[in-house]
Amino acid sequence: MKSLRVGLCGVGNVGGAVLKLLKESSDLLEQQGGFSFELIQVGARKGRSAISYDDIDVTTNLMDVANNPDVDIFVELIGGTDFAGELVRAAIKNGKHVITANKALLAVEGNEIFKLARKNNVQIGFEASVAGGTPVIKALREGLVANKVEWFAGILNGTSNYILTEMNVEKTEFSQALLKAQELGLAEADPAMDIDGTDAAQKASILAALAFHVPFNFQAVNYEGIDKVDVEDLRYAEELGYSIKHIAFGRLVDQTVFVSAYPTLVPHEVILSQVGQQMNALEIYAKGIGSTVYYGPGAGPEPTASAVVADLVDIAKGGWQTEPTVMSENVLVSESTIKAPRYFRLMVRNEPGVIAKISAVFANQNISIEALIQHETKDKNTGKTEEVPVVILSGSVSDQVVDRLLQELNEMEEVANCLKQFRIYTKIN
Amino acid sequence: MKSLRVGLCGVGNVGGAVLKLLKESSDLLEQQGGFSFELIQVGARKGRSAISYDDIDVTTNLMDVANNPDVDIFVELIGGTDFAGELVRAAIKNGKHVITANKALLAVEGNEIFKLARKNNVQIGFEASVAGGTPVIKALREGLVANKVEWFAGILNGTSNYILTEMNVEKTEFSQALLKAQELGLAEADPAMDIDGTDAAQKASILAALAFHVPFNFQAVNYEGIDKVDVEDLRYAEELGYSIKHIAFGRLVDQTVFVSAYPTLVPHEVILSQVGQQMNALEIYAKGIGSTVYYGPGAGPEPTASAVVADLVDIAKGGWQTEPTVMSENVLVSESTIKAPRYFRLMVRNEPGVIAKISAVFANQNISIEALIQHETKDKNTGKTEEVPVVILSGSVSDQVVDRLLQELNEMEEVANCLKQFRIYTKIN
Repeated sequence: MKSLRVGLCGVGNVGGAVLKLLKESSDLLEQQGGFSFELIQVGARKGRSAISYDDIDVTTNLMDVANNPDVDIFVELIGGTDFAGELVRAAIKNGKHVITANKALLAVEGNEIFKLARKNNVQIGFEASVAGGTPVIKALREGLVANKVEWFAGILNGTSNYILTEMNVEKTEFSQALLKAQELGLAEADPAMDIDGTDAAQKASILAALAFHVPFNFQAVNYEGIDKVDVEDLRYAEELGYSIKHIAFGRLVDQTVFVSAYPTLVPHEVILSQVGQQMNALEIYAKGIGSTVYYGPGAGPEPTASAVVADLVDIAKGGWQTEPTVMSENVLVSESTIKAPRYFRLMVRNEPGVIAKISAVFANQNISIEALIQHETKDKNTGKTEEVPVVILSGSVSDQVVDRLLQELNEMEEVANCLKQFRIYTKIN
Repeated sequence: MKSLRVGLCGVGNVGGAVLKLLKESSDLLEQQGGFSFELIQVGARKGRSAISYDDIDVTTNLMDVANNPDVDIFVELIGGTDFAGELVRAAIKNGKHVITANKALLAVEGNEIFKLARKNNVQIGFEASVAGGTPVIKALREGLVANKVEWFAGILNGTSNYILTEMNVEKTEFSQALLKAQELGLAEADPAMDIDGTDAAQKASILAALAFHVPFNFQAVNYEGIDKVDVEDLRYAEELGYSIKHIAFGRLVDQTVFVSAYPTLVPHEVILSQVGQQMNALEIYAKGIGSTVYYGPGAGPEPTASAVVADLVDIAKGGWQTEPTVMSENVLVSESTIKAPRYFRLMVRNEPGVIAKISAVFANQNISIEALIQHETKDKNTGKTEEVPVVILSGSVSDQVVDRLLQELNEMEEVANCLKQFRIYTKIN
């Protein structure tokens, strides 16, 4: 039986769950994988008090673990980029395989890290960095290995999905839903990276590297967060047969790759629209095979630990052959020419002819109107001029044309404001 | 670069798609997997005319391929059990790794085949045997390797799912829906194995072997097909907030494993209920991580080919360590003690007191009634005694208690007939 010695840094919720899972699953791993793993050193800044097992060597100097000559596989679970990056690079230079759950690190320094790993002939496991316990990295890298991926669409941030679900079900405003997520431990005290879309965009850049064989490049991802979504938008979307989800989207057109992450209207008949609460899901569309979807818990200590241990087994089996981005002529670009149908919510004057004028502006930009809602207002008979919301679903349109449309709309004196505009999910086959 | 020589038997739709995919994806495989595969011989009973590539050696004697000393990996795609089993056993004895999409063969002869493979130190790849191109075998065997699976629930037969979807959406009877499935090529000319539940039960027995580490034992699977489902049942289910799906279900309780495949009411809020058309989906519940769900095309030439090629890459990488059923003390039993809520549709006399009497029979067996529907009948004022349908959803109940209940109901003169009874999906956490 092959036995590998593991060193682990970071013993917060996730690190603690990895320790527990390694202890509890050792029989299962020997039986299923034919491997045993010996946890020989743990780096914990708080020292031994942070660990509930006393048969493990604990150091408060995390670099000790990365430098420990007896460690075969280095597991990085401290998060952040600066010190985590130092640790990972040191471990690689010392000839250790690395497992990390750190999407920020890979999104920002992935190319450098993989290059260093190749040079030192070691493996990088990062299943835990995207979609937690749901093995989406494995599906992309191995299960769909024979297929050319054409696009993916994913709900990759559990916090955002929880908040949108809560807003939709309970009809609460964003701020209330966020508060509830924080109370339940589903959102950080500082939830900025989750709700402004950064976290999902980082994960999307990792998926794009795997799916389309391009370098990791978080800078090229266009994204917005869910803070732009009002309860009102969720209500109109439901009325029109859609859920609003935060969708990370990657697409290969010819040899050009576009990656984005935006609040998006998803038709109810699409599986992603049914993914509620803090769950994640990833739809991968490949030529020939069509769509496969992977659904599961996107975060949390135990799902993340499950992914870390699966990586341990894979590395014990020999790991993966090449870094994900080698030998591709695909190019990741940041300026999107992708067209998508859109949702617009405008405030317009409640007077005759306004809809006709707005329609003319859409027609002028050669944009079709697929649906339009203007509800009867309750005090329409009071005689005073007032503003009413109008919701329009358009046909497919590029970012550039949307910009021109919005400019023209905003110049109209009948239009008080274009409050919102979101993309609409379309099957691109 | 490692190069492996492949021999393939069976060049129908699936075999043809494998040939095509191997040709088309060779660059991708070299790039991603670091391997090349050379298809050196094809066994086709119809000979060269069945193949569109003329640079491949073709034999009409399929056993030639299994005996070819130059073949490293033998791919069996002829289907059936007898001759396929002979070929696979011969290939294994000749020291070849085997890849098969043949669920019937594995469900019936899996133990013998895996034992032989272990003895001859070769690997068996069977990703294509369950859920086609959706990598569920890989998820179970590798992605969730650290987790103890407690149960799974899957829509594993695309034909059945297509027919149920068609019946539900179009309100057509089973026979019409089957006809349409046959016209679309989604059902065989003889669809018996699909619609009587055999195919799903075979796949469930393979998943159970992997999930619970028990021997392959198709005989122990209790199953029924979708031919028992009427449009009427789908309509009542919708009214009550459920879809009816054919669900293969495996569960580990203590060290006892139960596997079944039945038409099942699935609540609309459960992802499986949203899986329509000919798609497959598998929900796997493991301790700690909770549910993950895998969704995709369950059959078809290209998805199956995708799975076969993924197995080729895995075998090139060294394959898997042990056969799935080694070293477990779990026991697969055929008599189920699993309790599930139930749906009953009865025809009863339309007269006062009948519901009270039926309720008393349920109470007598200590079964709770969770919901009851009796619709107003249109000709209730004509005065004559007539029969009306009554639908009851019960609390959780075992097969044995259901048998006693049905006996008691059938003895009532007010009950003309218990037309249908189906299990209801419950989250078992």
